[in-house]
Amino acid sequence: MDVPSTALFTDHYELTMLQGALKSATADRRSVFEVFTRRLPEGRRYGVVGGTGRVLDAVENFRFDAGVLAFLRERAVVDEPTLEWLASYRFSGDIWGYPEGEVYFPGSPILRVEGSFAECVLLETVILSILNHDSAIAAAASRMASAAGDRPLIEMGARRTHELAAVAASRAAYVGGFTTTSDLAAGFRYGIPTVGTSAHSFTLLHDSERDAFRAQVDALGRGTTLLVDTYDVSEAVRMAVEIAGPELGAVRIDSGDLLLVAHRVRRELDELGATNTKIVVTSDLDEYAIASLAAAPVDAYGVGTQLVTGSGHPTCSMVYKLVARARSADPKAPLEPVAKKSLGGKSSLGGRKWAARRVDADGVAEAEVVGTGPVPTDLADRQLLVELVKGGDVVAREPLDTVRERHAAALGRLPLSAAQLSRGDAVIPTEYVA
Amino acid sequence: MDVPSTALFTDHYELTMLQGALKSATADRRSVFEVFTRRLPEGRRYGVVGGTGRVLDAVENFRFDAGVLAFLRERAVVDEPTLEWLASYRFSGDIWGYPEGEVYFPGSPILRVEGSFAECVLLETVILSILNHDSAIAAAASRMASAAGDRPLIEMGARRTHELAAVAASRAAYVGGFTTTSDLAAGFRYGIPTVGTSAHSFTLLHDSERDAFRAQVDALGRGTTLLVDTYDVSEAVRMAVEIAGPELGAVRIDSGDLLLVAHRVRRELDELGATNTKIVVTSDLDEYAIASLAAAPVDAYGVGTQLVTGSGHPTCSMVYKLVARARSADPKAPLEPVAKKSLGGKSSLGGRKWAARRVDADGVAEAEVVGTGPVPTDLADRQLLVELVKGGDVVAREPLDTVRERHAAALGRLPLSAAQLSRGDAVIPTEYVA
Repeated sequence: MDVPSTALFTDHYELTMLQGALKSATADRRSVFEVFTRRLPEGRRYGVVGGTGRVLDAVENFRFDAGVLAFLRERAVVDEPTLEWLASYRFSGDIWGYPEGEVYFPGSPILRVEGSFAECVLLETVILSILNHDSAIAAAASRMASAAGDRPLIEMGARRTHELAAVAASRAAYVGGFTTTSDLAAGFRYGIPTVGTSAHSFTLLHDSERDAFRAQVDALGRGTTLLVDTYDVSEAVRMAVEIAGPELGAVRIDSGDLLLVAHRVRRELDELGATNTKIVVTSDLDEYAIASLAAAPVDAYGVGTQLVTGSGHPTCSMVYKLVARARSADPKAPLEPVAKKSLGGKSSLGGRKWAARRVDADGVAEAEVVGTGPVPTDLADRQLLVELVKGGDVVAREPLDTVRERHAAALGRLPLSAAQLSRGDAVIPTEYVA
Repeated sequence: MDVPSTALFTDHYELTMLQGALKSATADRRSVFEVFTRRLPEGRRYGVVGGTGRVLDAVENFRFDAGVLAFLRERAVVDEPTLEWLASYRFSGDIWGYPEGEVYFPGSPILRVEGSFAECVLLETVILSILNHDSAIAAAASRMASAAGDRPLIEMGARRTHELAAVAASRAAYVGGFTTTSDLAAGFRYGIPTVGTSAHSFTLLHDSERDAFRAQVDALGRGTTLLVDTYDVSEAVRMAVEIAGPELGAVRIDSGDLLLVAHRVRRELDELGATNTKIVVTSDLDEYAIASLAAAPVDAYGVGTQLVTGSGHPTCSMVYKLVARARSADPKAPLEPVAKKSLGGKSSLGGRKWAARRVDADGVAEAEVVGTGPVPTDLADRQLLVELVKGGDVVAREPLDTVRERHAAALGRLPLSAAQLSRGDAVIPTEYVA
């Protein structure tokens, strides 16, 4: 909570590199860094860009104030000339990137940061933190939303991850297609609708389940959701309708064989005349469990652990690489492509890249095309990178609902097999053109 | 960053339960909540309590200020009487728990929160967020530290997780046995030593690897760590020693077959007379990769992704359950054990618990003993819970180094098989006594 600015969400070596570059007079060299990933998580068919909006906030707040500088001085992280340079730091370059919510594939240049080496290298850690975390959650959310179809999804994983990661996870889940969150901080910070009624402790607090239900209906109205699996589910359902009447909003089931119990509870509710009372299920759900309940009489899913841990893939493998640099700060000095070349993997494609998604006659995506030369005419209006920061100023803020809609639209333009939950390769290939 | 207090790291339903309990006049009932886990992550032999110190901070800062109350009012999360109650909220109860760094097992009462139902229920989400995240990282760190033996471990996972989760992960890694971190915010916030020198981009920025090495040695001195795998490793090692002399601090290898390359680099360094130059390896390491390098001439390990994602287990499954409550606020009213009882799992043991670790004649742990009745005489001085908060005041702050030493000591008193990396059951059984 009490880290004063985003400038410290930075690896020590970014600052020592700065010091080295200042010493060798290379700090001002015009540079291009790109964020990309060499592969999708195993078996995943597409990735989802999450966190771009948070990246823009982080870049804007990336300042070295007196407290931060004092810390760096005291720890001798860097020398005095470097501290002086940091004191006036403000990113003044340009950032282009895939708009948030867009899908991506191996090699997609998800974000491109241009400016002096010094101003760009410092942003590496915080940009990757945000994109790697938020994109992992957004991708898991997107798969869950596909599995849930039209049924709403409640994000309720706050208790399973770091308290602030949880807030970002709620945001990413919303982008991926979730409907609401249990996390009040996510409601406060991002305006995501929050929901929730009661836990088992509320029932156990009272002298009887009947007392608890009555207390909840008194306090929250008949439209509330009663948790019916503290003792005997069938008895609880009967009592719930007896107390709230057929206007009871919903019942929640949080344990047991959800498929079986949902069917039984639906039958019981219908027999009691509570035909409009909904059934919410929660209990270690993931996209597969959600899909397996497609034919069950379930009205909404609450998802916690598997959402905030990326359903098996809690991080992406995005990297931030210098892909081109000039030999001076002169805007006319030519950019030279650069890339690591040693044996043993981790190689990458040098050069400043564009990307476009080629579609077939029906408008369905058929390839992610990435290149360093001129953009082919037929792909000119299919380009994916948009301007996000211009001369240090953020130029592309947008409401979260726009991002959420963009994701749904982008997913809708992928081949249908994108929504398959089974393991597979990227749903479209990445093609490189020189 | 801009969530104003820890009070919003809370699930919506904690507040609606409060409203219900205020309405049914049960909010003041004396209550006992306990944090425990039903199982360890699959194959793990022990858990590590991480985050207790952060829990104490969160409890202290759990206040509903004007901004928070305005948000809750605007969203109609709760009614006016409940908002009034929240405005003067301050936890005034008691918290006992396993001291941070201690190991735990299934059923261990890791934290016990006592007070009125209302004041205790609100803390559920933030307490679980912190303990579930930090304990997952501490456990992974502990296994990696066992695998690394006396060799130092550098935490460098910031870019792979949420920017603030990264700070907590550095802290938990330090508790688990890591030596340093790359994360400047963790150095700032928790005083953990930070380290780092350069990335491939620094080499690529310069006109040649030679220029880059010279720049780094000029800026950071001969004791620096040069990254030698941008182009040809062998040539880079030769050049590094040529430039820095045999006083070169270390070389870092970040790709390729680390075992093979480390042997070759060691031989080359020795041939060049740089017999004191160390070798640091980094590249998707986990506890197994670290163990496999035990016989390699490696001096330090840098670990990123696998550390901050809990090496396959990014969260624990700790829960916060009401285990006992009185029928009034009267301190003399008897506490009645309570527990969820429906079929289908998630059952738990009611009653306020103590825990002790029984040891054999050699002082080696042989069982985690948990009970609700009187503590057996022979276990009286082996009890695990310590007082952390008394009447709302934190009474057990401690330096992080104390926590780190406690973990090493606790691990040292477990059977030797605790340090095995292979999958297995909890290294000691949990025994329940009435």
